[in-house]
Amino acid sequence: MAGNTFGKLFKLTTFGESHGEALGGIVDGCPPGIEIDFQAIHAEMQRRKPGQSSIVTQRQEADEVQFLSGIFEGKTTGTPIGFLIPNTNQKSDDYSHIKETYRPSHADYVYEQKYGIRDYRGGGRSSARETASRVVGGAIAKQIIPNIKINAFVSSVGEIFIDKPYQDLDFSKTESNAVRCPDSATAKKMEAYIKEIKKEGDSVGGTITCVIQNVPIGLGEPVFDKLHAELGKAMLSINAVKGFEFGSGFCGAKMKGSEHNDLYNADGTTKSNLSGGIQGGISNGMDIYFRVAFKPVATLLQKQDVLTTKGEIIEQQGKGRHDPCVVPRAVPIVEAMAALVLADYFLLK
Amino acid sequence: MAGNTFGKLFKLTTFGESHGEALGGIVDGCPPGIEIDFQAIHAEMQRRKPGQSSIVTQRQEADEVQFLSGIFEGKTTGTPIGFLIPNTNQKSDDYSHIKETYRPSHADYVYEQKYGIRDYRGGGRSSARETASRVVGGAIAKQIIPNIKINAFVSSVGEIFIDKPYQDLDFSKTESNAVRCPDSATAKKMEAYIKEIKKEGDSVGGTITCVIQNVPIGLGEPVFDKLHAELGKAMLSINAVKGFEFGSGFCGAKMKGSEHNDLYNADGTTKSNLSGGIQGGISNGMDIYFRVAFKPVATLLQKQDVLTTKGEIIEQQGKGRHDPCVVPRAVPIVEAMAALVLADYFLLK
Amino acid sequence: MAGNTFGKLFKLTTFGESHGEALGGIVDGCPPGIEIDFQAIHAEMQRRKPGQSSIVTQRQEADEVQFLSGIFEGKTTGTPIGFLIPNTNQKSDDYSHIKETYRPSHADYVYEQKYGIRDYRGGGRSSARETASRVVGGAIAKQIIPNIKINAFVSSVGEIFIDKPYQDLDFSKTESNAVRCPDSATAKKMEAYIKEIKKEGDSVGGTITCVIQNVPIGLGEPVFDKLHAELGKAMLSINAVKGFEFGSGFCGAKMKGSEHNDLYNADGTTKSNLSGGIQGGISNGMDIYFRVAFKPVATLLQKQDVLTTKGEIIEQQGKGRHDPCVVPRAVPIVEAMAALVLADYFLLK
Amino acid sequence: MAGNTFGKLFKLTTFGESHGEALGGIVDGCPPGIEIDFQAIHAEMQRRKPGQSSIVTQRQEADEVQFLSGIFEGKTTGTPIGFLIPNTNQKSDDYSHIKETYRPSHADYVYEQKYGIRDYRGGGRSSARETASRVVGGAIAKQIIPNIKINAFVSSVGEIFIDKPYQDLDFSKTESNAVRCPDSATAKKMEAYIKEIKKEGDSVGGTITCVIQNVPIGLGEPVFDKLHAELGKAMLSINAVKGFEFGSGFCGAKMKGSEHNDLYNADGTTKSNLSGGIQGGISNGMDIYFRVAFKPVATLLQKQDVLTTKGEIIEQQGKGRHDPCVVPRAVPIVEAMAALVLADYFLLK
Repeated sequence: MAGNTFGKLFKLTTFGESHGEALGGIVDGCPPGIEIDFQAIHAEMQRRKPGQSSIVTQRQEADEVQFLSGIFEGKTTGTPIGFLIPNTNQKSDDYSHIKETYRPSHADYVYEQKYGIRDYRGGGRSSARETASRVVGGAIAKQIIPNIKINAFVSSVGEIFIDKPYQDLDFSKTESNAVRCPDSATAKKMEAYIKEIKKEGDSVGGTITCVIQNVPIGLGEPVFDKLHAELGKAMLSINAVKGFEFGSGFCGAKMKGSEHNDLYNADGTTKSNLSGGIQGGISNGMDIYFRVAFKPVATLLQKQDVLTTKGEIIEQQGKGRHDPCVVPRAVPIVEAMAALVLADYFLLK
Repeated sequence: MAGNTFGKLFKLTTFGESHGEALGGIVDGCPPGIEIDFQAIHAEMQRRKPGQSSIVTQRQEADEVQFLSGIFEGKTTGTPIGFLIPNTNQKSDDYSHIKETYRPSHADYVYEQKYGIRDYRGGGRSSARETASRVVGGAIAKQIIPNIKINAFVSSVGEIFIDKPYQDLDFSKTESNAVRCPDSATAKKMEAYIKEIKKEGDSVGGTITCVIQNVPIGLGEPVFDKLHAELGKAMLSINAVKGFEFGSGFCGAKMKGSEHNDLYNADGTTKSNLSGGIQGGISNGMDIYFRVAFKPVATLLQKQDVLTTKGEIIEQQGKGRHDPCVVPRAVPIVEAMAALVLADYFLLK
Repeated sequence: MAGNTFGKLFKLTTFGESHGEALGGIVDGCPPGIEIDFQAIHAEMQRRKPGQSSIVTQRQEADEVQFLSGIFEGKTTGTPIGFLIPNTNQKSDDYSHIKETYRPSHADYVYEQKYGIRDYRGGGRSSARETASRVVGGAIAKQIIPNIKINAFVSSVGEIFIDKPYQDLDFSKTESNAVRCPDSATAKKMEAYIKEIKKEGDSVGGTITCVIQNVPIGLGEPVFDKLHAELGKAMLSINAVKGFEFGSGFCGAKMKGSEHNDLYNADGTTKSNLSGGIQGGISNGMDIYFRVAFKPVATLLQKQDVLTTKGEIIEQQGKGRHDPCVVPRAVPIVEAMAALVLADYFLLK
Repeated sequence: MAGNTFGKLFKLTTFGESHGEALGGIVDGCPPGIEIDFQAIHAEMQRRKPGQSSIVTQRQEADEVQFLSGIFEGKTTGTPIGFLIPNTNQKSDDYSHIKETYRPSHADYVYEQKYGIRDYRGGGRSSARETASRVVGGAIAKQIIPNIKINAFVSSVGEIFIDKPYQDLDFSKTESNAVRCPDSATAKKMEAYIKEIKKEGDSVGGTITCVIQNVPIGLGEPVFDKLHAELGKAMLSINAVKGFEFGSGFCGAKMKGSEHNDLYNADGTTKSNLSGGIQGGISNGMDIYFRVAFKPVATLLQKQDVLTTKGEIIEQQGKGRHDPCVVPRAVPIVEAMAALVLADYFLLK
C-alpha cells in the first residue's frame, strides 16, 4: 500500500535510499527451475550505471548485485529472490547544503510535508538511484519471457528527434553511442546538444520509444488492468516521466476512424498497427510500441532560488555530480519496467 | 487479478456486459456516516448517457441506479455499497451480424483468442457501456472528497483545439454545449466538424483535459504508486484512450531544466506549475492537470473489410447506433476515474 | 481492505445486509468456458436456507439467485459473474426492539463504536444471512475443481459427538437427517438434544468436520499463505466460529514425534495421515481434514440483560425467529469456503 | 501471491533459506517519525535464537540484524525498512545425507513435487529459521502499537498443562525458565519431561497461549477479514502449528447460549469474556486471548524409515542438531505474528 511493490504474480518489492547502507529488493513469484544468467543481469546494471561517458554524471557506482536467496546451484527454486546492492562511495557531506533547503522541482518539500521527516542525503528514497533495484527485477523478469524482445531507445532529446518509423531502425545500434539512439546521424546531433547544455550547467528532457516484439496473443486483462494501462503506470512511476502514449498515441486523437482502424489479414494479423499491439487491453500479437516523455532533471549547476526550511527564499549554487540528460540512462529502466509488466501478465495468462 | 477491481482502500469492483441482464458493482471501503447525494449520482449518470444531443448516438439507456446495500437512512454505514444498473431496451438481434465476424480495431478477436468464447452482443464486456459502473463509483468517491474540485472538458476534437491555458476558461460553461468544451467559439467549430464526420459515417478522436484543484499536500506514494502513475493507469483503462500526459507532459521533454523548474514562493506554493501539482509522486498542493488522448471509435457507418471466424476477409456495412465522437461523453468518465484515484489516496494518507 | 473480498485469483466480493434490498456479489477470475450447473447452485442455496426442518429457524427465505453477467449461453466467459439474492419477507419492524439496545455477544455494540452508525435491522451486515453470497461463490468454485471432493458434516452438538474416525462414515448419509450427521445413531441423539434446547429457548454449539479428497499435490504456498492457514482464515471468517484444527490438531500437541510422523509408502503416499494432507503449507495428495468449532448462537428466546444505547442495563425478552443450533446450516457454508480456498490455490498452481 | 508477504498496510515481505547467504525482509508501510528501539529488536531476536539452554538445540545463530534503509538518525522515515540477517556457521555438508531422501512429515517431498527443485540444505525455505525475519517485523510492529500488551507463554507440553486461568498468572515470570511457562511448578514438570524426551531422541508438541491487552475498540473488519480470522491465519502460518482457538474456543462448542453470552456492564465492558475480546470480527476492548497447538517436530535422533528420491524406503538415522520441543522458542514468534496483525489493523482503523 505504501507503494514499494510492483506486480501481482511476479512481484518486485524494493527498498533503499541514495545514501543509506544499501539498496535492494525481493522478487517473489519467480517460477522455479530457471537457470539465471547472472552476466545478463550484470550487463543491465552496467547500462543503468552513471558515469559511463563524457556526457553523463561522473558518480561512481560499483553496483554489484548480491543474490541472497531463491537461487540454488544456479537455478531459481520458486522461493523469493532477495538481493542487495551496497551503496559505496557515497559521501554524505556532499549533500549537507541541502539539509535546510527545498530545491525547486525536487521531492524535498513534499516528503517533508507528508512524512514530517526526510533523509535529505542525495534525495533519499526519491533519488533515481532507486531504479537500480528495478533493473535487477527487470533483468530477472526478462529471463522468464525470453522469446519476447524488448527494445527501448532514445527517440528525442530536446527538439532533436529521430525522423523515421521504428521499423527503419536497427536496434542493435542503440548501444553504439552514448545517447542510446539507434540512428547515428541523430545520435551525433543529440550528443553535441547535450554537451552544450552541460557547459551551461543546464539540463534537457527527451523521449524514449520502446518496441516489444513476439508478444503472445492474450496478455492483459480487460477493464481496469488493461495491458497498456499497466505499462503506462509502470513508465509513469519512473522518476521525471511526464507522459506516456502507445500506438497512435496523441496523434491518434486527431485522426478519423476510417484512417485509424487496423484492417485484418486473413491470419488475424493486421495490415496497419495504429492500435500498438493491444486491443481492449489485450495483446493481439502485433508489435507493442509506446513513447515515454522525460522532463529535464531539476538539478542544475547554476544559481537558483530555493526555499529554506525556515520559509525564506535564498539563492543557491547547484553543485555536485550533474547529469545534463538522464534520458539515455533511463533506457534500461524503461525496458526493465516493461519486462516486469509482461512477466506478470505472462504468469497470469 | 482479473482486473475488475480498482483501488486499494476505496475499492470499486464492477461487472456487466452490454447486453446482459444488468451492469453493476460494489464499492468497498467507503467511510461511514456520509449523507449520500443521490441526485448528484443521478446527474453524473445523465451526463454519461448516450443520446443526449443531435451529434451523438441515439441509444436510449435509462440508466437508473439501484442501491442495494451499505446505505441506511440516507447515510453510508461503512459496509459495501452494492448497486445495479439494469440493461433496458437492448435488442440482441441488433448485433447478430457480428456474431461471426471480428470488426477491425475492436476487441472481438482478442477476446475470442484469450477466452475461447465471447458474448458478441454489443461488444459484451468490452463495450463502453461498462463505464456506467465507473461513473457510479466515481460519483460516490467525489462525495468523500467534497473539497477537491475535479473539472474535465474536451480540449480538442480532431485538429480543432482550445488555444488558451486552462486558467482562462470558465469551467461552469463546460456543460453549456454538446461537445463539453468550455470555450464557446471552439465548441461551435467542434460541433460543426462532428456533424460533418457523422454525415460521412466516420468517427473522430480528441483529447480531454482535466484540472483538479484544492488537493491537499501529501497524496500519493513514492516509487511505484506515484499519484500521477495511478491517475495515468486510471485514464488508460478507459476505452479508446491512447495517451496520458500531466503537467508539462510531452512538451516538457523538449525543455531545459532552467525553464522547467518551478520556483518556490515563501509559502511553499510555486510560481509556475509545469510539474502539474505533483512532485516525486506526491501532491504538492498546486493544481493537478493532465490531458488524455482518445482515438476515434472503431464503429463506422461505412463499408469495411472484416475478418470472419472462418478466416475470410469480407466487406461488411457498419450499422446500428453510431457515435461519431465519444470524447464529450467521456468527460464524466475521466472525472469519475480521477475521483476514484483521489478518494483512494485520500483514505491512505 | 475493508474485508469484503475473499481470494486472490478466484475472487469473491460480497455485499448486503439482512434487511436491505438484496444480498449479492461478484465472482472475478472464474475461468472461461465452464458450463455452469445452475441446479447445483440452487441445491447448495437450499441446503443453507433456514426453516428446513422442525429443529431450526422458521424464517422463510426464497433465496433465488439471479445471475446478471459473466455467463453466456450457459457458459462462463471469463468476465466477472455478478449475482443477486433479493431479500424477501423481511419485516423491518420485527427488529425495532433492538434499535436502542446492544444484545450480548452480538456485533451491535462494536459496529456502533467502529462506524458510529449501524443498520440495526436483523443484525445488518453482521447477520449470518451474509453467508448466502458465500454459498453462491462456493458453488461456482466447486465447478472449477470438480475432481476434488469436499464433504463436511456435523461431528458434535454440545457434548454429543461421533465416536468414529471419518473413514468409517458414509458421507452420502449426511443429508439424510436434519442435523447433517452421517452417523444415524448420533444424529438421533443430536436431534433430541436440540429439540430440548429449543424448548428452553436456549441455543447450543457444535463442531463441523470437513474432509477434502482427491486434492492434487502442490496446492498451497509456503510461509505466510500456507494452504491450511488460508483454510483456517476462511473458516474463522464464518459467524460464530471459535476454533480451527486440521490433521492431528490440538491432540497432536500432546504427542511425541515418533508417534506423529507419517511414514512414507514407496509411492509417496503416507501410511498414517496425522499431517492432515498438508506438509509445509502444501497439499501432499492425502486427505485434507479439519474441524471447526461453533459457539452457541447469541439470540435466545429467554429474558436477558442488554445494554441500551443510553448506557443502561435492562432486561429484554428475546423474540422473533430462533435457531437453537446453527451448526447443521453451517455445513454448506464450510464447504463453500473450502471450495473458494481450493479453487483459488488451484488457479495459482 | 507466492505468499511471502504478510499484511495489507503494514506489510512484511521476507526471503531466505536456512543455508543461503542471508535471511531478510522489507517492512513497507511503517509510519514515519518512530524512534526505533534497536535494543528491543535485538532482545526479541535473542529470545527466538536456538541454543539458549540445555533443553534446546545447540545450533549457534548470531542473528545480528542489519538495517539497510528506512531509518534516518534513529527514526523511521516512512520509506521501506530493508533488513538482513546473515547466515553464519551453517555447514552445508551437515545436510548432505538428506539430499536424496524425503524425511517423514517434512516438506522435502512436496517442495520437490511442487517446484521440481529444492534447496535441501537444512530444509531450505521450509526451515523454521525463516521465522527470524518474522521476529524482526514483529518487533518493529510492536513499536507502533506500544500501548497494546502482547504476552504469549507455553501453556502445555505433551500432557502437562497449566491448570489455571491466565488471569492468575504473572506474565513477568514467562522468561524466568527455559520452557517459557509463567507457572513455576508446571514449568519444572515440563522441563523434566522435555529432558526425558531428549534422551530418547524423540520430540514432543505443546500449546502456546497468547493474551493481548489494552486493545482499542474497533480493530478488525467484518466478513472475510475478521480480526480473529487474520490472527488465526497468522498463527497457522507458523511451522508445526495444527490448531487455533480464541475465547471459549473448542470448549465453546459444547456450551449453551445462556452460559456463553457475555453480559454487558453499563460502560460497555462485559462481565465474562468467552468471546475473547472480539465480536463480529471487531475488537470490543476486552482482553483478546487465543491458544495455538504445535505438533512435535519431525526431526528425531532415532532411526526412521525415509523415502529416497528413487522411490525406495530405507532406514536412516537422524542426526545433527535436535530440538526436542520447539514450543518455548515459538513464543516470541507467536507474539511477533500477533503484533503484525494488530499493527496492520491499527493502521487500517
